[in-house]
Amino acid sequence: MSPDPGGVLGGGTATPPAGAAEAARPAPVPSARRRARLAVLGASGYTGQELTRLALAHPGLEIAALVSREHAGRPASDLLPGLDPRTAALPSVVDPRGLLALLASGTIDVLAPCLPHGAWRDLLAEQPALGEGAVAVVDLSSDFRAGGEGYVYGLPEAFRETIVGAGRVANPGCYPTAAALALLPAAEADWIAGPVMVSALSGVSGAGRSPQLRTSFVELDGGASLYRVGTEHAHVAEMERTLARLGGGRSIAVGFAPQLAPMARGILLTAHAPLARPVSPDEARAAWKARYADEPFVRVLPRGSWPETRAVRGTNRCEIAVTTLHDGRTLLATAALDNLVKGAAGQAVQNLNLMLGWPEITGLPVHGTPW
Amino acid sequence: MSPDPGGVLGGGTATPPAGAAEAARPAPVPSARRRARLAVLGASGYTGQELTRLALAHPGLEIAALVSREHAGRPASDLLPGLDPRTAALPSVVDPRGLLALLASGTIDVLAPCLPHGAWRDLLAEQPALGEGAVAVVDLSSDFRAGGEGYVYGLPEAFRETIVGAGRVANPGCYPTAAALALLPAAEADWIAGPVMVSALSGVSGAGRSPQLRTSFVELDGGASLYRVGTEHAHVAEMERTLARLGGGRSIAVGFAPQLAPMARGILLTAHAPLARPVSPDEARAAWKARYADEPFVRVLPRGSWPETRAVRGTNRCEIAVTTLHDGRTLLATAALDNLVKGAAGQAVQNLNLMLGWPEITGLPVHGTPW
Amino acid sequence: MSPDPGGVLGGGTATPPAGAAEAARPAPVPSARRRARLAVLGASGYTGQELTRLALAHPGLEIAALVSREHAGRPASDLLPGLDPRTAALPSVVDPRGLLALLASGTIDVLAPCLPHGAWRDLLAEQPALGEGAVAVVDLSSDFRAGGEGYVYGLPEAFRETIVGAGRVANPGCYPTAAALALLPAAEADWIAGPVMVSALSGVSGAGRSPQLRTSFVELDGGASLYRVGTEHAHVAEMERTLARLGGGRSIAVGFAPQLAPMARGILLTAHAPLARPVSPDEARAAWKARYADEPFVRVLPRGSWPETRAVRGTNRCEIAVTTLHDGRTLLATAALDNLVKGAAGQAVQNLNLMLGWPEITGLPVHGTPW
Amino acid sequence: MSPDPGGVLGGGTATPPAGAAEAARPAPVPSARRRARLAVLGASGYTGQELTRLALAHPGLEIAALVSREHAGRPASDLLPGLDPRTAALPSVVDPRGLLALLASGTIDVLAPCLPHGAWRDLLAEQPALGEGAVAVVDLSSDFRAGGEGYVYGLPEAFRETIVGAGRVANPGCYPTAAALALLPAAEADWIAGPVMVSALSGVSGAGRSPQLRTSFVELDGGASLYRVGTEHAHVAEMERTLARLGGGRSIAVGFAPQLAPMARGILLTAHAPLARPVSPDEARAAWKARYADEPFVRVLPRGSWPETRAVRGTNRCEIAVTTLHDGRTLLATAALDNLVKGAAGQAVQNLNLMLGWPEITGLPVHGTPW
Repeated sequence: MSPDPGGVLGGGTATPPAGAAEAARPAPVPSARRRARLAVLGASGYTGQELTRLALAHPGLEIAALVSREHAGRPASDLLPGLDPRTAALPSVVDPRGLLALLASGTIDVLAPCLPHGAWRDLLAEQPALGEGAVAVVDLSSDFRAGGEGYVYGLPEAFRETIVGAGRVANPGCYPTAAALALLPAAEADWIAGPVMVSALSGVSGAGRSPQLRTSFVELDGGASLYRVGTEHAHVAEMERTLARLGGGRSIAVGFAPQLAPMARGILLTAHAPLARPVSPDEARAAWKARYADEPFVRVLPRGSWPETRAVRGTNRCEIAVTTLHDGRTLLATAALDNLVKGAAGQAVQNLNLMLGWPEITGLPVHGTPW
Repeated sequence: MSPDPGGVLGGGTATPPAGAAEAARPAPVPSARRRARLAVLGASGYTGQELTRLALAHPGLEIAALVSREHAGRPASDLLPGLDPRTAALPSVVDPRGLLALLASGTIDVLAPCLPHGAWRDLLAEQPALGEGAVAVVDLSSDFRAGGEGYVYGLPEAFRETIVGAGRVANPGCYPTAAALALLPAAEADWIAGPVMVSALSGVSGAGRSPQLRTSFVELDGGASLYRVGTEHAHVAEMERTLARLGGGRSIAVGFAPQLAPMARGILLTAHAPLARPVSPDEARAAWKARYADEPFVRVLPRGSWPETRAVRGTNRCEIAVTTLHDGRTLLATAALDNLVKGAAGQAVQNLNLMLGWPEITGLPVHGTPW
Repeated sequence: MSPDPGGVLGGGTATPPAGAAEAARPAPVPSARRRARLAVLGASGYTGQELTRLALAHPGLEIAALVSREHAGRPASDLLPGLDPRTAALPSVVDPRGLLALLASGTIDVLAPCLPHGAWRDLLAEQPALGEGAVAVVDLSSDFRAGGEGYVYGLPEAFRETIVGAGRVANPGCYPTAAALALLPAAEADWIAGPVMVSALSGVSGAGRSPQLRTSFVELDGGASLYRVGTEHAHVAEMERTLARLGGGRSIAVGFAPQLAPMARGILLTAHAPLARPVSPDEARAAWKARYADEPFVRVLPRGSWPETRAVRGTNRCEIAVTTLHDGRTLLATAALDNLVKGAAGQAVQNLNLMLGWPEITGLPVHGTPW
Repeated sequence: MSPDPGGVLGGGTATPPAGAAEAARPAPVPSARRRARLAVLGASGYTGQELTRLALAHPGLEIAALVSREHAGRPASDLLPGLDPRTAALPSVVDPRGLLALLASGTIDVLAPCLPHGAWRDLLAEQPALGEGAVAVVDLSSDFRAGGEGYVYGLPEAFRETIVGAGRVANPGCYPTAAALALLPAAEADWIAGPVMVSALSGVSGAGRSPQLRTSFVELDGGASLYRVGTEHAHVAEMERTLARLGGGRSIAVGFAPQLAPMARGILLTAHAPLARPVSPDEARAAWKARYADEPFVRVLPRGSWPETRAVRGTNRCEIAVTTLHDGRTLLATAALDNLVKGAAGQAVQNLNLMLGWPEITGLPVHGTPW
């Protein structure tokens, strides 16, 4: 189903896959690797599973190790419902303590920690050589999103040039990705004149796969809830850091109202902010369209259309609609993405593509199934 | 759970039902009617059905007519899944053209139009006598929410004194009820210094019962969507009217981002506004608690708790949590209610109770089933 | 909807609640108790919560103790989402070790264990006096469904006469209740000539409230699964015991295919069996109608209608449709009920009503909300 | 994202796509076509959409026309939520009256009617040349499942040899596909000694995309229902025809209890039948495993595992588990498939692969996303 890796990735003519957007960026040919041997750490969680599925369909990624402390020794198919165990040629699950040996033997060379927050930092503290041996690390947890240990922040639409060729990338959080992409054109243009208020609902997979009463079916089906409202959510600091960086360092305060909706996947986000000068709805829309014209994974919706999560379900796309209210004094920007793809595993693959010198869109789904 | 009709409504000792909140208001005894003969117009819609269910359990309401142009002549049980046709002593469905005769004969004396917007106004234009013959009309559509024809706006927590004994009440919309209750203490105290931004998600019953592609199961399950974002939604004008009235006439602009979530019932609302002076989270919470201390159907949540729709599912309660952000300069108020109960049929019963001189809580569910 | 406790339970004129089915049975007046002080054991589970909600609305039941080892000492509202803590006058949660003292002091006199299977038996082994002190015990677990310790099997439609006035009742399982009610007329008439095959789907609340991966939202939403198919499910033996008893002792083999569907509540069951002699669809329907004519909680649907769980959601009703196939040689009987009401807590209240000498329908919901 | 069509399909070395099951069948090289220009009739329905999505990812299929009377003239993206309109190079929607001209001009050469039942037959009656001009027709409606006009029944696992190279194929129904695959080994071996009873639940997409009250979100969410139970469902005759043909002509009666569950996709089926001779569970499982050993799209589950729809969601797989009960006298066979893939569009692609001389698995998803 996937193109021959040799043909696509091996030479200097890295063409994008048929049917995908024309990638406007020059292919970073010199450093392109033929094939990466990937270890997915935390392979039983929703993010780890999604990354494994994407990697199976990626022509340059070989799943060389699935890592899970809890499930070590079990066949991969036990962790990955939906895969046909007869044809998914996956290695058995290994314990994280075996990672160093796999790195040393050359069995793996790229690491993707999909771990609970703090766990990757802890592993590095225990086994410092882990951080050194890998050709590339894309960390899907929040451990290094504020920087440290050489990690760059992996939001390609904003910071692509620092990701290309990087060896260590901190993959953004799902909410911060949606918020940053919704507001980026305004932040870059220095339009935002006061606190940004973000209201967003998330599918339940965003809460992780460990069984909890609050994420059990009966407790969630048919209802929605607000949680950790205000400014203390770890994602608020991440949003503020990104907005400040986009705006040239000027600090912008964020308030956040996250909500859990009875669906497995998807983030739907609404952001409001006062504007420094009146901007008409058409001017705002034109600015967003211009800024994202060359971005394969961001689509600005036409006037009168508003984001919905099913349109991006299973894809690496973020769909955005923007307008202004109150005679142009209030910005209203909205976005939808799939929290497991553009909000996690898909963006990690997008980052790996940039890190490893492959076309940015390689192996990433552009069309989804809305139901 | 409901009091004996004779005992509660017939005399001067109208005590609240056992197990319900102590009603602080004096019982408007003199005008109290023993029993009202209710006609539900639009009995097959979600609002009409919910009102019928509530009326069945109400000691003072007798369902004397179910009215539906489309289903006239059919037994009531065809319209009301969930009712046991062996024991629900309901009249057959009648056509709206028969209403005048029913009014004239004294078969009905209270009307509750649960119709698509404009239909009640049209009926009144066709049969002006309809509006005159009824002892009480509570209109659940939006036709007279801006006033006209003697209708008062039926938000008891804000305008109780104008509803008591009124003959014509326009029942508020579901979103505007949640927004008004979330913001009421701030609006009354004149704390709001700029545009209010409201983001809210609604269950699908809010979109009505007529089959549409956008409300079909497959299109909705597993996804959420924004729709009619901005300032044009009819509910925006209703919110602005109420906020202005609460604030003594000063106009407050509202921006609105309504969303559809994959659940049958419930509204979860978040509102932000700049504050005229810094207010601490504790001061805000104390103000809301004080304002709502005597309200049987509004509950202000303790610090650290945030609204969820399942907690109010099937009840006439609105649950509210409030805080301030950014050194007290931004108000963040949140609310949850059941769009079919406090957002429609339950509030209509609450209004009828006030209009007809009964204890405000009569027949209204205080405890719900979250699943 | 419920009668005034004094009027209904105190005297000899126990009239059925207004709007409910006419109760054909003679009221067992002599032993009728005015009021029972109920202890719900396992008050945080779905069954315990449902029983607590039903008991709150029951004129003869006072919730005198909520018992939970895990939540002892916490306020009841923490365990019972949906209840308004301002008005639900519930006692704090107590540890099971305090039960004996409560019994001894007369604080409680009726016990309803809503515990994981085996736990009630274990408690009795630890504190034998528990079993002796209570006026009535209705056990909602499976511990005594096969008999023992004086427990009678509490399926009122089949064995009412043994339940009236009994002190110890084992409440049937949810699947066995649906299967027994679907097949009862055929079993009593000795029509079944071979193995009965039962296929049924259940809502997720049937799997209990302890967090498990398999009952988490993401794992269940949008999918259905078979589990423990065959003859080993504990419910198979319970079905076989009931069918044998109904048929005068002749053994009938059962095969069972239980399924989990993505909904919180409800059982939808289909049963097939070869018939001893050809029976026409009309003859079968007439037999079922005749058998259940006086049963307030069983409704046989008219020809062409088939059961759906939403019609019985929140009620104590079981709806049944029956036909025959293949020239009358195969019986096809179907049923729907709410697993938490007629399949658990509602049936327990029905049994308590019979045990304590109250009208069988007291306090039980006949109308439900389908969404 | 898809392999180069020239490389895969053009030569005599048609190798299966990497990562897919080894196709045991010899490739029918001589007649293999390089590329087929497909017209999807009824492109806005769920089946038509799914086929369009599969065809987009298929290396041999080019979507040359999307046909819809209702949506003619609109851009394809309006009909296909989830597709990125910037990169899905799809033709505009055309009216069926334009089909003949497209056929005549060579713009299209393969037709896939995904129409309501009867519509394809009607179109053929109006424009007989439609049926003659196409190189291949795979009809996803039920019009020719009983044969006629040269259509062969497209269940590859049973009748592969008649499909290879055929020009007209009637694609089986979703329920009959699941029933036939569950029972096929028993029917072929003549083990079935009496009526087969089939109980199955389906996701809502099986009811089509036209807005109806019974398939609206509020009516379905949280509940399940039986419908058209018995022997009159059109699918019963289809099941009986297939079983008879598998068993060498001996007639086997079928009874059917279809159910609607609150999920978008998936069929979960349970079939029971009396056996001609006692068969142990292990013998049954071994027979099923042997029969399906070479089938890429049928997986027999290991002992103790039972089908679930999420495991096959989005794939062309059917998963089956079988056992026997009552000392081997009753067969119990269960199956799960995705009604839109193996039950409709995926099986249509599988048939097209056989009809057009391509490897059977070409372009078909083997791994799915369970949530």
